[in-house]
Amino acid sequence: MRFSRGRNFLFRVPEGKELLSFLNEFARKNNVLIGTVSAIGSLRNPKIGYFVEEEGQYKVIELKGIYELVSLSGNISLKDGEPFAHIHVALGDSEGRLWGGHLVEGEVFVAEVYIRELLGEPLERKLQESGLVLWDEES
Amino acid sequence: MRFSRGRNFLFRVPEGKELLSFLNEFARKNNVLIGTVSAIGSLRNPKIGYFVEEEGQYKVIELKGIYELVSLSGNISLKDGEPFAHIHVALGDSEGRLWGGHLVEGEVFVAEVYIRELLGEPLERKLQESGLVLWDEES
Amino acid sequence: MRFSRGRNFLFRVPEGKELLSFLNEFARKNNVLIGTVSAIGSLRNPKIGYFVEEEGQYKVIELKGIYELVSLSGNISLKDGEPFAHIHVALGDSEGRLWGGHLVEGEVFVAEVYIRELLGEPLERKLQESGLVLWDEES
Repeated sequence: MRFSRGRNFLFRVPEGKELLSFLNEFARKNNVLIGTVSAIGSLRNPKIGYFVEEEGQYKVIELKGIYELVSLSGNISLKDGEPFAHIHVALGDSEGRLWGGHLVEGEVFVAEVYIRELLGEPLERKLQESGLVLWDEES
Repeated sequence: MRFSRGRNFLFRVPEGKELLSFLNEFARKNNVLIGTVSAIGSLRNPKIGYFVEEEGQYKVIELKGIYELVSLSGNISLKDGEPFAHIHVALGDSEGRLWGGHLVEGEVFVAEVYIRELLGEPLERKLQESGLVLWDEES
Repeated sequence: MRFSRGRNFLFRVPEGKELLSFLNEFARKNNVLIGTVSAIGSLRNPKIGYFVEEEGQYKVIELKGIYELVSLSGNISLKDGEPFAHIHVALGDSEGRLWGGHLVEGEVFVAEVYIRELLGEPLERKLQESGLVLWDEES
């Protein structure tokens, strides 16, 4: 689907905030209904998800300590009528090894976030048979 | 090189499609000649490449099973006169460990893709002595 | 903070250049004061940092050989009155394993870089008690 450009936000999330809920609240407060998100920084005790197809749900992996937030990529669209951020992260440990998956939760040590709003027809997530909540497929 | 802004596309690739060829076809069908690409999702049995300088070619690493598509970054430019997507991916396994490299192939389980078109002078890939196919260097 | 859109740059960094200093010089030469950065390619002997909170400084991890530059994410803002690039990278070895963190240094084998300029109030980095140099927090 095609969209036109909206606002641009570049900001630092306050230390101690839970990152995923902060992004969702930011989108709701600023009425960002569609957009893309990227960020770098570092997170404390992040929890990441790996979707287990057979079970139709995420297995949650709990990491302990501080991890470099090496990449954060994702998007904002509507779920149950509200702006919702779907976010994946890559996280670096003290040996430089990377871990990552679907962001479930993470306390911000540092997060420098860029949000690019897109404008157009609403993109809505709908529950699929797989257990995932997705947009309609592009034809 | 400087470019002006073109169209914005945000969409879900249909399940079962091969991601790299879908991106190339999308660019050709929509006449996106220059652009950037990012995505998240998950892929089945992805193949990634590591360029071996001494051999002037990619070593292909075949991963088995479903991997979270933690990041996908890349660009679209011209190769042999056609739009061509150059894409790198980070992939998460069920333990949260990350794998990645140059995307060679991957079947889509889920892929939420953002393509930002850029407009301007064509950027063309040319075969180099190294075996890589690259743009001219920025001066 | 909200910004409006500036210029778009998509280019290949010359082989052999040190990537981080090239990005800083590019921003200064082109007067990009605020922006975001992404890239793919491959780097020789990259050095990455992991911030050790107790010590208030980065531990530097030196990787040897050529690594696929699987993702590069970051931003440009002002530090000591000059444009400054804060960059995180994910790097793939010949087995497809990923390594990464804060980019300290890396010689370019290939780097295809996208810089998106943003325009607005200056975003300035200031030394924090933690030892990190950060923007003010978003309220």
